[in-house]
Amino acid sequence: MATAPLAPGSTDRTRVRRLPEKAVSERDVLHRVLDAGLVGHVAVSDDQGRPYVLPVAYARDGDRVLIHGSTGSRLFRALAAGAPTCLTVTLLDGLVVARSAFESSMNYRSAMVFGICEVVEGDAKAAALDLLTDHLLPGRRADLRPHKKKELAATLVLALPLDETSVKVSANHPTDDEDDLDTPVWAGTVPLGETYYDAVPAPDLRFDLPVPEYVRAWRR
Amino acid sequence: MATAPLAPGSTDRTRVRRLPEKAVSERDVLHRVLDAGLVGHVAVSDDQGRPYVLPVAYARDGDRVLIHGSTGSRLFRALAAGAPTCLTVTLLDGLVVARSAFESSMNYRSAMVFGICEVVEGDAKAAALDLLTDHLLPGRRADLRPHKKKELAATLVLALPLDETSVKVSANHPTDDEDDLDTPVWAGTVPLGETYYDAVPAPDLRFDLPVPEYVRAWRR
Repeated sequence: MATAPLAPGSTDRTRVRRLPEKAVSERDVLHRVLDAGLVGHVAVSDDQGRPYVLPVAYARDGDRVLIHGSTGSRLFRALAAGAPTCLTVTLLDGLVVARSAFESSMNYRSAMVFGICEVVEGDAKAAALDLLTDHLLPGRRADLRPHKKKELAATLVLALPLDETSVKVSANHPTDDEDDLDTPVWAGTVPLGETYYDAVPAPDLRFDLPVPEYVRAWRR
Repeated sequence: MATAPLAPGSTDRTRVRRLPEKAVSERDVLHRVLDAGLVGHVAVSDDQGRPYVLPVAYARDGDRVLIHGSTGSRLFRALAAGAPTCLTVTLLDGLVVARSAFESSMNYRSAMVFGICEVVEGDAKAAALDLLTDHLLPGRRADLRPHKKKELAATLVLALPLDETSVKVSANHPTDDEDDLDTPVWAGTVPLGETYYDAVPAPDLRFDLPVPEYVRAWRR
């Protein structure tokens, strides 16, 4: 197994766990969780109350979350038409290996945002797409040509306000029953995290260009 | 950046991409995606059609997916009462860095399962929990004591049949407009994957036990 990227005591997990002790507000925790993720899961319900859950890339823009999709997407059309939604972002941080199955669990950070999306239009639309690029592919924007009119027309950009939210952080060691502590069985946690691997150049690259520095910097 | 765990041409991404070419059934792809994940997102709607999306650990058991939660959980009580649901599992495989923002995207595998859960009870309940342990913490079960009656009583185990499903695999290089190919800008993909880090022993471990071999084997 690889070595954790940060020394014990300063991992992302413990940093988040300590936030409440430092009286950092729940709003700050919410922002941090949203800023650490790339993909959330968004749901809408049909007229019979059956939910549909789909993955979407997102970015936080102050007190709202931006998402974008095709004007041909049923999900995005329903959201643009005012369907109530929930966007949930979950970052899996580790496995909690307790002495019983019952106490075994996972460490994670999860943010939920409930509400109704607003359609982002006009000049704000390109700006919102740029903000999505800055979050998902930091540094990339300077290398991109401007959006074409037909591209903007084919894209729905939606903003979900951070008005009704919930955030949960689980970052624990196993908490076994006292009875189980005398069992000579290993227990502990196994941290998990998303890793970026080496960039793969496009096969149709017509120039002998190195991987840009900003791409090399996409580590976690 | 770290080196990808598999040589180019045999990564998990391309292996999945090639499946349709090899006439492997969509059902096999669905099973592989579900078997590769640990956490899915499950939704239920309230009586006003507002969806709630929550992360859950899961395991595939043949032609159904098992989930488990507290009898105190509103989500699990609603699911046990027959609320229609959707469970979506998404594995983020990489970033697609195209020459335009419009063509930039992500590579991922995603499985959706729609339906109504069945409550797993009796002898089947402990067996289902064991199957969840075998998927989430492979090798661990032999080290665990039997479930206690009160633990089983405090746990809801639900099975969602794989009757109505959808699976999508996106594993592409950038597909830019011909017009954009002469721009001297790097393009390509950046693979992403979940990594297990070194196990951390529980602070209350009363024995000098090494990290078990089966825990060391949890790599991806």
